[in-house]
Amino acid sequence: MSTMMELVEELWFLKRDIVSDDFDKALHRLSEEIPMTIHEYPTGSQAWTWKVPEKWTCHEAYLESMDGERLIDYTDHPLHVVSYSLPFEGEVTREELLGHLHVHPHIHNAIPFVFKYYQRDWGLCASQELRDSLIDEKYRVVIRTSFDPGILKVGEVIIPGKSDECFMLVAHLCHPAMVNDDLTGVVVGVDVARKIFEGPKPEYTYRLLILPETIGSVAYLSDHEDLIPKMVGGLFLEMLGNHAPLALQQSMQPESQVDKTLIAVLRGCDPKSYVGPYRTIICNDERQFNAPGVRVPMLSLSRVEKPESIESLYQPYPEYHSSCDIPAIVNQERLEAARDTVIEMLHAFEKNRYVVNKFKGEVFASGFGIWIDYKENPEGHRNLFQIMERCDGERTVADIAIELRITFQTVWDILSTIAKKDLVTYSSTPKSTTPRREQV
Amino acid sequence: MSTMMELVEELWFLKRDIVSDDFDKALHRLSEEIPMTIHEYPTGSQAWTWKVPEKWTCHEAYLESMDGERLIDYTDHPLHVVSYSLPFEGEVTREELLGHLHVHPHIHNAIPFVFKYYQRDWGLCASQELRDSLIDEKYRVVIRTSFDPGILKVGEVIIPGKSDECFMLVAHLCHPAMVNDDLTGVVVGVDVARKIFEGPKPEYTYRLLILPETIGSVAYLSDHEDLIPKMVGGLFLEMLGNHAPLALQQSMQPESQVDKTLIAVLRGCDPKSYVGPYRTIICNDERQFNAPGVRVPMLSLSRVEKPESIESLYQPYPEYHSSCDIPAIVNQERLEAARDTVIEMLHAFEKNRYVVNKFKGEVFASGFGIWIDYKENPEGHRNLFQIMERCDGERTVADIAIELRITFQTVWDILSTIAKKDLVTYSSTPKSTTPRREQV
Amino acid sequence: MSTMMELVEELWFLKRDIVSDDFDKALHRLSEEIPMTIHEYPTGSQAWTWKVPEKWTCHEAYLESMDGERLIDYTDHPLHVVSYSLPFEGEVTREELLGHLHVHPHIHNAIPFVFKYYQRDWGLCASQELRDSLIDEKYRVVIRTSFDPGILKVGEVIIPGKSDECFMLVAHLCHPAMVNDDLTGVVVGVDVARKIFEGPKPEYTYRLLILPETIGSVAYLSDHEDLIPKMVGGLFLEMLGNHAPLALQQSMQPESQVDKTLIAVLRGCDPKSYVGPYRTIICNDERQFNAPGVRVPMLSLSRVEKPESIESLYQPYPEYHSSCDIPAIVNQERLEAARDTVIEMLHAFEKNRYVVNKFKGEVFASGFGIWIDYKENPEGHRNLFQIMERCDGERTVADIAIELRITFQTVWDILSTIAKKDLVTYSSTPKSTTPRREQV
Repeated sequence: MSTMMELVEELWFLKRDIVSDDFDKALHRLSEEIPMTIHEYPTGSQAWTWKVPEKWTCHEAYLESMDGERLIDYTDHPLHVVSYSLPFEGEVTREELLGHLHVHPHIHNAIPFVFKYYQRDWGLCASQELRDSLIDEKYRVVIRTSFDPGILKVGEVIIPGKSDECFMLVAHLCHPAMVNDDLTGVVVGVDVARKIFEGPKPEYTYRLLILPETIGSVAYLSDHEDLIPKMVGGLFLEMLGNHAPLALQQSMQPESQVDKTLIAVLRGCDPKSYVGPYRTIICNDERQFNAPGVRVPMLSLSRVEKPESIESLYQPYPEYHSSCDIPAIVNQERLEAARDTVIEMLHAFEKNRYVVNKFKGEVFASGFGIWIDYKENPEGHRNLFQIMERCDGERTVADIAIELRITFQTVWDILSTIAKKDLVTYSSTPKSTTPRREQV
Repeated sequence: MSTMMELVEELWFLKRDIVSDDFDKALHRLSEEIPMTIHEYPTGSQAWTWKVPEKWTCHEAYLESMDGERLIDYTDHPLHVVSYSLPFEGEVTREELLGHLHVHPHIHNAIPFVFKYYQRDWGLCASQELRDSLIDEKYRVVIRTSFDPGILKVGEVIIPGKSDECFMLVAHLCHPAMVNDDLTGVVVGVDVARKIFEGPKPEYTYRLLILPETIGSVAYLSDHEDLIPKMVGGLFLEMLGNHAPLALQQSMQPESQVDKTLIAVLRGCDPKSYVGPYRTIICNDERQFNAPGVRVPMLSLSRVEKPESIESLYQPYPEYHSSCDIPAIVNQERLEAARDTVIEMLHAFEKNRYVVNKFKGEVFASGFGIWIDYKENPEGHRNLFQIMERCDGERTVADIAIELRITFQTVWDILSTIAKKDLVTYSSTPKSTTPRREQV
Repeated sequence: MSTMMELVEELWFLKRDIVSDDFDKALHRLSEEIPMTIHEYPTGSQAWTWKVPEKWTCHEAYLESMDGERLIDYTDHPLHVVSYSLPFEGEVTREELLGHLHVHPHIHNAIPFVFKYYQRDWGLCASQELRDSLIDEKYRVVIRTSFDPGILKVGEVIIPGKSDECFMLVAHLCHPAMVNDDLTGVVVGVDVARKIFEGPKPEYTYRLLILPETIGSVAYLSDHEDLIPKMVGGLFLEMLGNHAPLALQQSMQPESQVDKTLIAVLRGCDPKSYVGPYRTIICNDERQFNAPGVRVPMLSLSRVEKPESIESLYQPYPEYHSSCDIPAIVNQERLEAARDTVIEMLHAFEKNRYVVNKFKGEVFASGFGIWIDYKENPEGHRNLFQIMERCDGERTVADIAIELRITFQTVWDILSTIAKKDLVTYSSTPKSTTPRREQV
């Protein structure tokens, strides 16, 4: 079994375009690490409003000066060719070439990641430095790509739970020769799944999807419509190895129990971590799950500089979508911290139920040996009493944590103490214990 | 057919007191411009808690010095006599006179508009300058007014729509010898009605009421109780020709679809225009429609200086309720701009329905040829995707515009594009497409 | 019949520990002032999660120097012994003594009030000054206390109303030899009850409870479970004689009609008075009534310095929980002001019902002789019309007061005026008069 960083090192440089041999290779390699079902969607299949594209292969590509000097070569770096570029061969003027030669907006020596899945155009990518050196009148371009019937693949790791209601974990694998975006999300997802497999049977069924961005999610969802009503929530994973705080992006239903739970867990993690509304941190496959007709509350977790930081000028991190996104900018420690946060979130969501009081009035804390003196520990005292006060069958653990602006774990620890005294029980549905009276 | 300014010029100086020959004359003249039903409510008729007052006529009125110099004369200006002043004739001391002589608080050479419909008092109005010149001991007052059985008249222009649910437009006509308040609202209403008549049959039935303020609305409403449940919304019109930004006052139900629609339209008009809560901009007949037992969400549109402007010291515009409110302070261009805004609001309200998605997931924008590149047009891209994301049978066009803080037209244009692709349809009632799942 | 201050003077120095002879003595004395049912809960009785404690008696207690000089003596002041201290007798080292000798944190010459009802420890209390003078190696301690089977007593004054729905007034009596906290709340409660008795039969039944803190409320509630659904609201009383503004603490249901009513009344009282959320001003027996399984909206009224004042350093008032809390820091005038505020609150709550309009549209104010000129009295004019506008069978008197940010009395006065004109009526349940129409 490989570590997350070992998987990153092994797979990162593959040309993992959305439907491609290298994507399949990477997915196959991951399936050796963890049991995986692979769903296949042939080119041309309809997926809701989408059509599965052809397999794309770049056999050879280069830019030469007229006297045969090789200036750009696909064999040097997969990013040198626009993903899904049309084939092209011929002599071009400098001006014509520049119209098809993409550079990175910030990093002068980086090759940018450019994709034109549906625009049907040819293109090359290079560093600004190389572009600046192109002063000849004419150049020779060779792009030998082919578009063939192929199969879009979605890997699904299923961890069966006591219930068939499922929690979705999603990461995409289709960013060629890059690491933080998107391979780190994949390996964190895999490691989270391995950890859940190790533990006791979970409450919910977990489904980790490893797929090409957007089209992979649409293909899977349209193929699993019956499953959609059973999806109780989800988390998209990406950019988890770089040097930036953890950022949790809310779903389109910020009042959902999933949102509340994950936020209340994050609050107990790295104090630099933060929460942002839907679509304000990063946009990925969670869009498909939050979309009309699906509406699964899916959040996303990533490492993104806060908007007010200098680094955020190069949103979401400096090396984003470039050939500088290499293994050196991520490390095992940060991947593990992200993995542990995800696991803590999932554990919390498993535990998040309505808290039903078996007591009435305030609990005789001294009598149960759970008294906390307010002079010695004012925060502990306040938490104890304000949590017990909210146990009424109408609030979940997460509701209480959000109301009191404290962590999920703080609430859970106190509830565990009083549950041991047989003072509360849990319910997956609301069970109000408030006496009925005329609304006054 | 006269232009709005021509109607203003023709009708403004009439002594249009609430029940009076000149009111009838003005209303009759307007009925030549547009087909109108005239409702008649005789003096003494009960209208809910109100009674229709008598017709008031001022036959002659003046103030003279004891040596016969005429100082004030009703023939010079209708505002010289308090509207509904009792008759009075006799010699008065200077002190007694000043108790009955009203002046304008700000403009020293203006005659103020004062009305005492129900207080039963006599009174004259003059400029502060004239008042200051009154230094004699005694004066002679002649006010020959009469109170006779008459008929309160309400003009109603009905534009039948496909539905008998109706949208109410209201303007009052009872401010004698003044222009911006209230004749401009009337002529804008008439021109709006003419424009609707010109177009195809509207969805809703439109009813434009031209009436004496307050008592006219109460008389009409109490006479049309059956119609009240069919009134889906309304807009009061007034002060639309002066130099000030358009101000839209919300109804008492600021969450109504009418409120949301009109606000989302105004946002696309003059950027200086603004919105204020109920009763914060101006109070007129919309009070009757928003009142208990009626509760029609009626907004009002007028040109009023923002509260923070210097001009707003003389709220709502400097010449308000004075003899300075003359044709020169308004112009055709501003009237047309107001009219066009109203028409745009009504068109939008006609179109405002629940947007029901025929797609699931995010739409394959490229496949439908509606892709907007986020680098070339970030705002367009954001609008396209955030609007499509909200098409779920639970939100109207106006709901989406308000949520995204964009104009109604922006939402409508994008919806029209995707409706052409058969991606959405409309419904007058909510039709949620969200899959049912346990609330989590 | 004694005045409130006379009762304070008579009862304050009694050793009113929670279950004690002096508590019973005080309660018995109060029962001579007002008809009272006394509920008895014997030691060991179960009260929900609580057990009624033993009766505690301190027969004798002192601290002596080894040469027999008496340094602390219980006969000097009841606070010298920790309430519910275990008995102890013996020679102790200075260090051991100091571990059991409590002093006041702020006031150097005050004996603090310390209670250890459930911790089972011995302890003495003294001034900081005395503590500082203890320089010997050894001292002799004598604490002769006994724990015996006894009876916890709860006094209940019942004022029967037209309905058996009841409003709860609660004050605790168990703070020995102190005045502002807690005797002032008790005497204000008694005087409020006397005043209600004097008046006509109230709408609600009133129940004033005089009890030992916390355990008294739990004992009463667990013994009266059937009554809980009939409790429509409540008010806890304490600290009402000191020099500080009245502070009203909201219940856990700040949107309840009780909360709205009491807040709208307080707004009309001392302008220095203020309102704070639940648990932010002071915590007492209202906790038991707001607790899970009970959830009666109970507010609390007390005199507490605002958090921003210098005095609030010694929260909630400088002499709190010390031997400085003596009759001199309270006075009859402040007690009466508090009592009158409570009575006004109760009267308002009795009157607080849904206001149902018998009119439609705006009322013809002049016709009913209730017109208020907006130039002469803009506030009165605004209140008149904005209150009438909200009479729709969907809002209570308190709802209107809170919406308009005015006092309950202001709303009531205007409603009384228009009720006399037969324009409105009242209902204990909502009776909407809004015409039904499609939600638009």
